[in-house]
Amino acid sequence: MSENSASFKIRLKNNAAEVEACLAGILTDTAQPDEIARPEPLLAAMRHGVLNGGKRLRPFLVMESAALLGGDAQAALRIGAALECVHSYSLVHDDLPAMDDDDLRRGQPTVHIAHGEANAILAGDSLLTLAFDIIAAPETGLQDRQKTELVLALARASGIGGMAGGQALDLAAEGLALDETGITTLQAMKTGALIRFACEAGAIIAGSSDADRRLMRQYGEKIGLAFQLADDLLDLTADAETMGKATGKDAARGKGTLVALHGKDWTEAQLARLVQEAATLLEPFGERADVLNEAARFVANRRS
Amino acid sequence: MSENSASFKIRLKNNAAEVEACLAGILTDTAQPDEIARPEPLLAAMRHGVLNGGKRLRPFLVMESAALLGGDAQAALRIGAALECVHSYSLVHDDLPAMDDDDLRRGQPTVHIAHGEANAILAGDSLLTLAFDIIAAPETGLQDRQKTELVLALARASGIGGMAGGQALDLAAEGLALDETGITTLQAMKTGALIRFACEAGAIIAGSSDADRRLMRQYGEKIGLAFQLADDLLDLTADAETMGKATGKDAARGKGTLVALHGKDWTEAQLARLVQEAATLLEPFGERADVLNEAARFVANRRS
Repeated sequence: MSENSASFKIRLKNNAAEVEACLAGILTDTAQPDEIARPEPLLAAMRHGVLNGGKRLRPFLVMESAALLGGDAQAALRIGAALECVHSYSLVHDDLPAMDDDDLRRGQPTVHIAHGEANAILAGDSLLTLAFDIIAAPETGLQDRQKTELVLALARASGIGGMAGGQALDLAAEGLALDETGITTLQAMKTGALIRFACEAGAIIAGSSDADRRLMRQYGEKIGLAFQLADDLLDLTADAETMGKATGKDAARGKGTLVALHGKDWTEAQLARLVQEAATLLEPFGERADVLNEAARFVANRRS
Repeated sequence: MSENSASFKIRLKNNAAEVEACLAGILTDTAQPDEIARPEPLLAAMRHGVLNGGKRLRPFLVMESAALLGGDAQAALRIGAALECVHSYSLVHDDLPAMDDDDLRRGQPTVHIAHGEANAILAGDSLLTLAFDIIAAPETGLQDRQKTELVLALARASGIGGMAGGQALDLAAEGLALDETGITTLQAMKTGALIRFACEAGAIIAGSSDADRRLMRQYGEKIGLAFQLADDLLDLTADAETMGKATGKDAARGKGTLVALHGKDWTEAQLARLVQEAATLLEPFGERADVLNEAARFVANRRS
């Protein structure tokens, strides 16, 4: 492990602790203004779904993108927390019996196993709703113009035209042999859109120029592609213990991946190319972009 | 039927047609900026869930509240459509096997019966997400400050501290004998919060004073209470044909209602009192509030 890589992992870990604390602070039993009460069983299911010691890669990307462009750190933390609520809700719902039917996530029982299916559905719904609450809340700071842009970009990244649509395509694709375009569209929606949003959000928080916002979107697209390729590679090679969840399921379900289509060597070459393309995009920022370059390498090389 | 009541029903019906057209225009297969694609099976499930010929009472309240206070009609229509997306998503998810397990709504198969359970979950998720998309989209007009307020108020009304929390309480209450406070809290969350939001949204759209906004909230609370009491009364007395859905289920599930607690006569007196209190709140507006007064009577007296 290079020195950069070691310090990157510490940075990621410290950041994850900050995000965890922020989310824990939001998910207390204290009703907020305009709320009537927070029923404990639902709150417990939400906390189970989101306070799970994840890597918090998406919030990290929000916060480091914002930091690179001079955005407010506290606002970026809150927007990162909002994004993690969306990511977590999608996992809670994807794990449901009617969807991927998974009992285990990060080595723990999934939300519907621990809290029942009805509470899992409602916890997912409430986490999604909470994400927009967090963006709009006064505590987040930011100008109303920025909040409107964040709400719209997050909604588009996570709704029918993004993540949820990607999950629908994924379920419909079981047993079908998708071609390269089909796989690429599915993955751009299911996992790419939120990761792209994470990087673009940093530019919105910083009030960046359209050019910088576009650049961060492009960087986010590279990271999103790399994330998915690494994930597909992992699904083939890792065992359940390393991943803390069932593996090899994609292949068992007949889901097409680019790894299955092109093989391991092509995939590793593609990952190296994406890391390089990300670095080229970030060149204008010089050394200040070191963390985001390291993030691209981390995403491409991750083994869990 | 009084002359007022007849013309009110025509107004409500025309309004519902406008809302239906607005929602149909939004739920096309054309991907919007920042969207990647709109998968047809998911879109079909969303359309099934929301384009169902409902009365569109909540959008009506948004639009008439905004009209009373001088808000832009086009913006109010869009915010009404957003609110209907939230209401519809909640019905799609509430009908799921793990929740209320209903096969029939408004005389039609529910979304999971017609489109499968996975698509029903994702359609609900996507409708909820779309609501915030609609508020933030440029087509809605309004100032960013107003959009932020609408996003926050809608999220609080529909999340753990509002509608979703109310549904969690409702599921937890099956077979328990809730006391008056328990029932009132549950109903204020499950149905009251969205109806209150509808009326408050009119004031936000109109850029009203804090005093007028508070007044519309209070009016919305009266309407919300009346709506629930009328609903509980209907559940006891109507047959499935009139309602287009299963009836008598609340009693069969042992769910407590104020009607069950206090009887039919008390409930009818309470409904009359709520209509009167709503009228008192609207007195400052004189005759211009006729439609909203008629709305209160309609909600209290509805028989389907």
